[in-house]
Amino acid sequence: MEVTPGARVWAIAEGYIPEDSTGPEPAMASHETACLLNASDEDAEVRITLYFSDREPVGPYRLTVPARRTRHVRFNELEDPVRVPRGTDYASVIESSVPIVVQHTRLDSRQAENALLSTVAFPAG
Amino acid sequence: MEVTPGARVWAIAEGYIPEDSTGPEPAMASHETACLLNASDEDAEVRITLYFSDREPVGPYRLTVPARRTRHVRFNELEDPVRVPRGTDYASVIESSVPIVVQHTRLDSRQAENALLSTVAFPAG
Amino acid sequence: MEVTPGARVWAIAEGYIPEDSTGPEPAMASHETACLLNASDEDAEVRITLYFSDREPVGPYRLTVPARRTRHVRFNELEDPVRVPRGTDYASVIESSVPIVVQHTRLDSRQAENALLSTVAFPAG
Amino acid sequence: MEVTPGARVWAIAEGYIPEDSTGPEPAMASHETACLLNASDEDAEVRITLYFSDREPVGPYRLTVPARRTRHVRFNELEDPVRVPRGTDYASVIESSVPIVVQHTRLDSRQAENALLSTVAFPAG
Repeated sequence: MEVTPGARVWAIAEGYIPEDSTGPEPAMASHETACLLNASDEDAEVRITLYFSDREPVGPYRLTVPARRTRHVRFNELEDPVRVPRGTDYASVIESSVPIVVQHTRLDSRQAENALLSTVAFPAG
Repeated sequence: MEVTPGARVWAIAEGYIPEDSTGPEPAMASHETACLLNASDEDAEVRITLYFSDREPVGPYRLTVPARRTRHVRFNELEDPVRVPRGTDYASVIESSVPIVVQHTRLDSRQAENALLSTVAFPAG
Repeated sequence: MEVTPGARVWAIAEGYIPEDSTGPEPAMASHETACLLNASDEDAEVRITLYFSDREPVGPYRLTVPARRTRHVRFNELEDPVRVPRGTDYASVIESSVPIVVQHTRLDSRQAENALLSTVAFPAG
Repeated sequence: MEVTPGARVWAIAEGYIPEDSTGPEPAMASHETACLLNASDEDAEVRITLYFSDREPVGPYRLTVPARRTRHVRFNELEDPVRVPRGTDYASVIESSVPIVVQHTRLDSRQAENALLSTVAFPAG
């Protein structure tokens, strides 16, 4: 590929992990996912910072997306430096050492039937 | 962060607050949300203008998103200068004094199971 | 507003009007909508062209979005030059005389509970 | 049209074909679709490469979108060089010989009522 798709900074303004789930775990647990694609030939060192409405940002959460790999990160599994709070509005900024592509998905299983949403994150630099 | 993600003008062409809701209030009330992220180190002074199909625009609705904070604004809670009408198509333009990121979400609970939609708003300047 | 948000050419690659609906008409009829926002001070003369998988494009469908107005266009109500076929994949290109913003929404009511999708269209020029 | 909308490289970071479906086949089978619009006057030669979390990319899958046509590609029907695995996270990069527009849709019918998601893919070049 002549053009490696992506950007080095992404933002997801919408974030919310519901407190309750229905259905079999873990596939049907309510979750928010950031899908990261690194189509380049270098490993991507990724830093995620979370923003809240009523306190200072937390982070960075650090992870690696190897060269030519995708990684679907569940926000409800991020634990270091702190577990992502449930039932709380948040937003996230994702920075990478190489261009990546980020898409945001939420599965909401609070009611019997699931709702899905997805959107490409906002590329900023 | 070297790059503050965002833009100063955003547009959401799709807006509609259903008249009826099912489920426990307020979490399951039908609502439209504009999720605003201000990852900069300055407070963002935000002005929202609403557009309709059959009358002149109304606004601005004014609010502040503090530095390094996110704020999830429910359109059905905007009341000054006027309450946002139910059952009416509208669109919105969001202007900010510093770059922010805007994402648009709707929870539609007119029927027993909820529908969710979300998309990044259109960045214009 | 110093910047009028928008673009003059937009594309929606995903289009499909289901053949069947459930629920009360017309609010719950399956439909695809293009939400158009004209935040400028000039009327927007809009031309919509539909593309198919197996025949030449049809159009233009012509409509006006007045200055400072939004208009939510249901594809299943477009009739001139031809009614939009049901149960058929299509795509659309939307051209405007002034910058507008376009968002795409579908309500799918083939099953008992509705599904909603929405995304900002692709701005091309 | 003076401007042909589109880009030559697109990325979809979110990909997942559920293993189970409910409802009548094939319209209600769980599927992921890439909707491709070629509004130009030249045929588009398209190459799709799939990325995974735990193995090297596969592809290219090759297909043609004729001039002035749209084509809605179901990932679960891609078979050459290999069938797309079920129940596995993946991402995709779509390259075209002429500018096209790509939109990503998923129908998830694992539960009784369907969930739909859609978003414009990320244009990269």
